[in-house]
Formats: sequence, structure tokens, C-alpha cells
Amino acid sequence: MQHLSKEDLQNLDRIPRLNLVNSLSGYKSANLIGSVSADGITNLSIFSSVIHLGSNPALLGFILRPPVVPRHTYDNIKATGCYTINHISEQQIEKAHQTSGKYPADISEFTTCGFDEEYLAEFTAPFVKSSKVKMGMKLVEEIPIESNGCLLIIGEIFHLIIPESIRKPDGSLDLNQADTVVISGINSYHSPTHLKDMEYVSVNSE
Amino acid sequence: MQHLSKEDLQNLDRIPRLNLVNSLSGYKSANLIGSVSADGITNLSIFSSVIHLGSNPALLGFILRPPVVPRHTYDNIKATGCYTINHISEQQIEKAHQTSGKYPADISEFTTCGFDEEYLAEFTAPFVKSSKVKMGMKLVEEIPIESNGCLLIIGEIFHLIIPESIRKPDGSLDLNQADTVVISGINSYHSPTHLKDMEYVSVNSE
Repeated sequence: MQHLSKEDLQNLDRIPRLNLVNSLSGYKSANLIGSVSADGITNLSIFSSVIHLGSNPALLGFILRPPVVPRHTYDNIKATGCYTINHISEQQIEKAHQTSGKYPADISEFTTCGFDEEYLAEFTAPFVKSSKVKMGMKLVEEIPIESNGCLLIIGEIFHLIIPESIRKPDGSLDLNQADTVVISGINSYHSPTHLKDMEYVSVNSE
Repeated sequence: MQHLSKEDLQNLDRIPRLNLVNSLSGYKSANLIGSVSADGITNLSIFSSVIHLGSNPALLGFILRPPVVPRHTYDNIKATGCYTINHISEQQIEKAHQTSGKYPADISEFTTCGFDEEYLAEFTAPFVKSSKVKMGMKLVEEIPIESNGCLLIIGEIFHLIIPESIRKPDGSLDLNQADTVVISGINSYHSPTHLKDMEYVSVNSE
């Protein structure tokens, strides 16, 4: 086994450090976040930091890098109060990865990366039509992370759109069936295969 | 496609709602967090909420449920200022899942779930000997999430222990090689298979 200290990590060059440290939390979720500006320009951007925060209310969070340069997703969410989260499936990887480019504010990644928009009545933000699991979110909390200037953006699920066929008897979703992928490091895409479901662990402490 | 509103989610029974909403962020990372109390009792607990926050400094976060009942991991981190994060591999799923039980404070999940402890000189918290990717963390920030009373716990990586064989030429780790698993919903374990690596997206905005 190899042992790297805090100092060893700091002394790595920037790109190898980015690649290494981005591997350390384990596999990351793969989602496209859709939003729209006050001027009506849509935006779509890939995020690997979407996490579950609670089921009642149904809250998801994601991490935004420090808003020291223009962050269109952030500006749009602040302007409209809403956004969408759309799972990335195996068939979408190439196009979804293209949304990581830094496009000018007047360019929609929907158009330039080849995704069709989809809308719900009375909900402003655009969904990704081809995604199998998609959520309409309303912003509820924005938390600055002092340690590095990032923001934790928290939203509540107001709309959930899913194929009925992926709902399992226990209420959970069959994400294998949805072809949802995961990301490791910065740019490596993987498809999970189901191994096993485990029972609730009941401990008799008498 | 099926459309569920915020109200539809609220009206679900508790367990189906837990199972459904826990599926919505996509697949989740699978880690064991090791800690030790001021009295020297070790603790090990499974977490599916560990996320990458930044690479310089190297920061990881995880979500703790509201500390309204005893949370041994939280108490230990507050008492000692440190903890370990250890990837869960395919071979460890059964034992790792057992750590989700609510054991009394004087019981170590290392012993009762069958994991060997491992230590570094001058670092208090126990590592999981059989894990392939393991990190020694120091607490740097604790952020209350107002929306539901959870806490975001942020730590810096002070020690990284990995097999040299899983380091790729670009600095990232081969998590397939490490047999690291992912979780969907509450209790479903999966093994990712590599699909493809994508290039950095360079946009010429001229």
C-alpha cells in the first residue's frame, strides 16, 4: 500500500491532483441541471455532485464551484428560483459531457449539445426530454462553504417524471433499468450492475 | 411517463417514500466512516452521502441526519476532531451493511460486524484494514442545513492509503480495480463497469 500525506497531495501538479482527489469520494452521481435565464436563454450543465438530503420534504443538494467567474446555472437559479435535475443514461454520455464546456451566456447547451427541451405547465425551467428520470426543483436554501468558497444549493422536488416501468414494488427505482450512469474522477463513465439488496438491520440491544 | 407532484410524494407512506426519494439523486457512493470515542470505543458506520468538495485543499463532505438521537459518529468526531473514510468493496457488502444497525455506544461495529482495525502513528481514528481506498480525515467545518436539520460535515484529507496498482497514468484511481461499489435507494448494491473516458471539452468562443 502507498501512503500519501496532506503535503504529498498538495505537492502534486494541479491536473494529477484534480484527477486523484476527484476519485476519492468513490463513484459520483451523473446529472444534467437545466435552467433558464431571465432573458429566456436556456442552460444545461453536467454535475457529479447531486446528493440526497432528505425524503420528507424531498430535498436534493448539489455543489457549485465558487461564483468568482460567471456561473450561468447559478445566475439562472437565482433569477427564476427553479431548475431541473435529469439523470444521465448510457446513451447520453457523449452529449452530456459536452455540456461541461464553457459556452458564452447567449448559447444554449440544449441546442449546441443536441438535447431537446421539455416543459411542464407553470414550471419555468427546461427538462431534458430524453432523460428517463427528471425532477423539477425549487430553490430552498443556498449555503456557503467557508473552507473553499463553494456553495451547497438545496432544492425541493416539486415534480418527478419517471417511466412507470422502473418503479419497484418497494417504491424504489430500478436505476439499472433507467440506464443511469456514474462518474469516477473527472471524466470516467461507468454503468452499474446490480449485485444484491440487503435487509433492514434490526439490532436487539437487550 | 408518470408525473408525481410534491403533494404526491408527501402523500406516499413513509417507507415507499424513503425508498423512492433515496433513488432520485442517482447512484450514491458507498463508504465506511471509522471513529473513536474519548473513552477509546471505536465506531464504524456506513454512509452513502460522501461527496467531493474540492481538490486543493482536498476536502470531502458527508451528511449526518439531525443529531436529535445519539449519533456516535458525530459525537466521536466532535470529541477527537478526526475520522476515517474507507471505500466499500464488493467483498465487504454484507458486513458493511450490518454497520447500519443501531448498536449501543459500548459496542464497536468493528468487532460485532467483523472488520479489523488499522492505525497510523499519530492519527487517532481507526481505518478499515480490508478496505482498498482509505483516508484519514480532520474535521474542518460543520454546517447546519436549516431545511431539515441535517449537518454537512466537511473534512480535509490528511492521509491517503491506496494500493499503488490502482493509480492510473493521469493520476486518477481505477475504482473498478478497487472493487468499489455504489448504492441505489436505501439498500441496493451495484458494481460499476467502465464504459468510456471523455476528453476535456475546449470551447472556442471566438
